[in-house]
Amino acid sequence: MPFDATDHALMARALRLAERGLYSARPNPMVGCVIAHGGEVVGEGWHPRTGEPHAEAFALRQAGERARGATAYVTLEPCAHHGRTPPCADALAEAGVARVVAAMRDPFPPVDGAGFARLQAAGIAVAAGLMEAQARELNRGYLARVTRGRPWVRIKLAASLDGRTAMASGESKWITGEPARADVQRWRARSGAILTGADTVLADDPALTVRLGDATPFQPPLRVVVDSGLRSLAAARVRDGVAPTLYLHGPDAVVPSGLQAEFVALPLRDGRTALDAALQLLGARGINEVQVEAGPALCGALLHAGLVDELLLYQAPVLLGDRARPLLAGLGIDNMAARLPLRLIDDAVVGTDRRLLLRP
Amino acid sequence: MPFDATDHALMARALRLAERGLYSARPNPMVGCVIAHGGEVVGEGWHPRTGEPHAEAFALRQAGERARGATAYVTLEPCAHHGRTPPCADALAEAGVARVVAAMRDPFPPVDGAGFARLQAAGIAVAAGLMEAQARELNRGYLARVTRGRPWVRIKLAASLDGRTAMASGESKWITGEPARADVQRWRARSGAILTGADTVLADDPALTVRLGDATPFQPPLRVVVDSGLRSLAAARVRDGVAPTLYLHGPDAVVPSGLQAEFVALPLRDGRTALDAALQLLGARGINEVQVEAGPALCGALLHAGLVDELLLYQAPVLLGDRARPLLAGLGIDNMAARLPLRLIDDAVVGTDRRLLLRP
Repeated sequence: MPFDATDHALMARALRLAERGLYSARPNPMVGCVIAHGGEVVGEGWHPRTGEPHAEAFALRQAGERARGATAYVTLEPCAHHGRTPPCADALAEAGVARVVAAMRDPFPPVDGAGFARLQAAGIAVAAGLMEAQARELNRGYLARVTRGRPWVRIKLAASLDGRTAMASGESKWITGEPARADVQRWRARSGAILTGADTVLADDPALTVRLGDATPFQPPLRVVVDSGLRSLAAARVRDGVAPTLYLHGPDAVVPSGLQAEFVALPLRDGRTALDAALQLLGARGINEVQVEAGPALCGALLHAGLVDELLLYQAPVLLGDRARPLLAGLGIDNMAARLPLRLIDDAVVGTDRRLLLRP
Repeated sequence: MPFDATDHALMARALRLAERGLYSARPNPMVGCVIAHGGEVVGEGWHPRTGEPHAEAFALRQAGERARGATAYVTLEPCAHHGRTPPCADALAEAGVARVVAAMRDPFPPVDGAGFARLQAAGIAVAAGLMEAQARELNRGYLARVTRGRPWVRIKLAASLDGRTAMASGESKWITGEPARADVQRWRARSGAILTGADTVLADDPALTVRLGDATPFQPPLRVVVDSGLRSLAAARVRDGVAPTLYLHGPDAVVPSGLQAEFVALPLRDGRTALDAALQLLGARGINEVQVEAGPALCGALLHAGLVDELLLYQAPVLLGDRARPLLAGLGIDNMAARLPLRLIDDAVVGTDRRLLLRP
């Protein structure tokens, strides 16, 4: 490999910088940039939000003349196209950078190798693939949207050890503790949309807004209600104006006027909103990550359709018994061979609860 | 506190020695002993099994003349009575030990402070309570039996993340992986009895023996089948002669002759075997720890009756859906206030599964 320990350390630093855009960069990818001579850092930057300069521009500005002959570490291929800002590949060349180390190629069609080509044409040494796995993990939402048209879909669940989410009566406040519920807010804040179903809206009248409890800036996620018959409109907190709201309904639903929300009709499939169409729509609107906070039927339907990328499961150290409500319904599993295996990605203690991040 | 760092280190060593009796000392407690001058160990021992010498005797034998003026670290109060061996308190005094540090008092009525009194009467300095929590944890089975007459009850469960133990058809092989199933064998080996119900015997025909996969010596646990009507007798692996077998049945069941098992009648309560009576019976027979490996009804009944001391839950990273069988039945929980909270004692990764040790 063409990378030494300094390269690794500085790319790790660039990845940490990129992560500062976690709550705000979307729909753009998070990108970090470090400019250095050997181990001496002369400039660094990250992309804070759409319309503001890219990470490379901030780092070059800080480095000034010292960019000449330096190595630039970027977590994503520098752009080659004129978007809202001029191409970063050109800026790096003009500043006299000698070498660019990128964590990964940007699959966004206007870039997709053109950034590297532009750098090489300017005589800059280019090496890609350093800490690529970490870079992919960071921008998994952006990459999902760009490469397959659908956002990255995360289902958030909170359950007892015996896999129950609520009492038979519907009572569910609270299975998990306050620290777990605060942690959920941070996962909401990184999501471009929070998706729920009519049952949850009717049962809980949730606001589905982000409450971080501090001054961290974030973009309010779009609130999406999948409600084929628009039967949940009586519950109004989800369109309280704090964040945008989108109802996805069936072709025959009667759309009321005067409500503070957007309404889009989608086809039905077996009488239910076509979930793949819903996700395509969100992808087309630049949503990178969707966090699903819904009941067992909608979560189960997404899983059964193979549309789920990860599960964020908060497990409370409590038992609720077999009369309580199940975690997931409609998985259609009748024998062990059909079970749905998951990979454990992360396991954390949050207050008295445990948080598992799992992927199919 | 009268204990210094050397005291702590040597008591920790004595506790590790005691643990060597985990699979064999029962019904006796596990005990370890270290004899030292300052930090210099001159003798150590542990109690391997009933009928063999106590930990103190082994340690004194090894120390010989060097026991004179030494400190003896014992994980449990030295005995004061003539059992199968002479009183250890006397042996320590005769050897000229100057100080005895004990982790805890032995609540067994013939000892229960008399050991300490005998040592003090012989002019030996006695200090108790060093690492008492660890000592109590180690002998939680023995202590439960001696102080309340019932064994320590551990329910072993294996479930999916959505709290399911088997398919609707009963198919359950295997939810957890091979490392988890091997781990279960070590928890069986430390148990004086493995308790199951008629449903499990009929469904799985389990042997309920210990298979450690190595030459570690252990006492085969008693296999206990709770079967009020003796309807599970057709499944015969549980009485294959490899370990003793006990059926607990109702007063009206017809006990067959010629079977390689013991049969004891217990009263029924609401048509089911009285579980508290079952546990009292096992306690009276010197069972320190009972491991329950049964279905959702029997496990749920034990929990509902408040008879469970800990749950050993193996969680596989898999989803089985809401048609699959529940982890526990009959808990009788109808609102969140009635939920059964648990404390997480230990959390370990075993192969691809997770093992949680929890206590109500």
